[in-house]
Amino acid sequence: MVPDKKDYPLVDIRRHLETGPIVLVTSHAEGRSNIMTMGWHMMMQFSPALFGCYIWEGNRSQAMIRAARECVINIPTFDLVDAVVAIGNSHAEDGDKFAATGLTAVPATRVKAPLIGECYASFECRLHDDRMIDEYGLFIWEVVRAHVADIQAPRTLHYRGQGRFMVAGEEIDLSARFMPENL
Amino acid sequence: MVPDKKDYPLVDIRRHLETGPIVLVTSHAEGRSNIMTMGWHMMMQFSPALFGCYIWEGNRSQAMIRAARECVINIPTFDLVDAVVAIGNSHAEDGDKFAATGLTAVPATRVKAPLIGECYASFECRLHDDRMIDEYGLFIWEVVRAHVADIQAPRTLHYRGQGRFMVAGEEIDLSARFMPENL
Repeated sequence: MVPDKKDYPLVDIRRHLETGPIVLVTSHAEGRSNIMTMGWHMMMQFSPALFGCYIWEGNRSQAMIRAARECVINIPTFDLVDAVVAIGNSHAEDGDKFAATGLTAVPATRVKAPLIGECYASFECRLHDDRMIDEYGLFIWEVVRAHVADIQAPRTLHYRGQGRFMVAGEEIDLSARFMPENL
Repeated sequence: MVPDKKDYPLVDIRRHLETGPIVLVTSHAEGRSNIMTMGWHMMMQFSPALFGCYIWEGNRSQAMIRAARECVINIPTFDLVDAVVAIGNSHAEDGDKFAATGLTAVPATRVKAPLIGECYASFECRLHDDRMIDEYGLFIWEVVRAHVADIQAPRTLHYRGQGRFMVAGEEIDLSARFMPENL
């Protein structure tokens, strides 16, 4: 299923990323697209929207992403767990991961890397700071466009290591107990 | 309830942090301890165990933590949600947050900041790299000791913004479909 994603305010993307889901990172270089799984990431700034992530230098995607200086961060939900596990247990040299998984590559608007149609949220990113890549594998991205489908309480996947995932559970609204400036 | 936490292998702390829970950061400076909530963080390295987090320069805790170069990262579960919301909606100058919330300060072993007894996991941290604090508010910590209680599928809290939280749901084991080197 390819949900209908809409343009989404960049200042609100933390609502989808701060919970810590496993994401699928798409890249495009030398005429081909690739997908990798990624779980070490964090929001870093609201506006401009900055997002940091760790990409291991031994990962073939790292060189592609570093050369292209662009990527798309896509958030899968539980219905895509088979593709997530398959992608996480394959290599860039194994061939076209879109073909292997049946996921749909959808053109982005601001970068060459494709969105993943089946993911409920996709964030187009441009490399903002490459100074921490050599030492820490840390990429700092500016999110330049966000696409999010109107799905309540998405059942995102959160990696626990050793092949285990936590699936996002219920959502609770405690906003009545927050100071207005914190909302 | 103060769960019985045990010494935990540093190389395995990603199992608790990679899922993206809201954490409570304790600090100690000038004879007093403080607690702040924090949701923008990421694992950065297995060994030595590195952990990055964003602390806003407007937060009073930032100066305390930066001066002390130490902190403890504590992971609360759903039963502590009242304390999490109270701490997130107070200021350092409001006074002793341990007294205000009833949380228990337990001495750490390697740092002066206290563990929070009621949290199921606590990680003692020393500042590893302060070079990204001025520009990004990014603290890179080395976790020097970990304490974790033996709780299955902890119901951690994951912040969605606007006063809403996702509560950690079911856990699924897909390890049989992982390549051995990925486990």
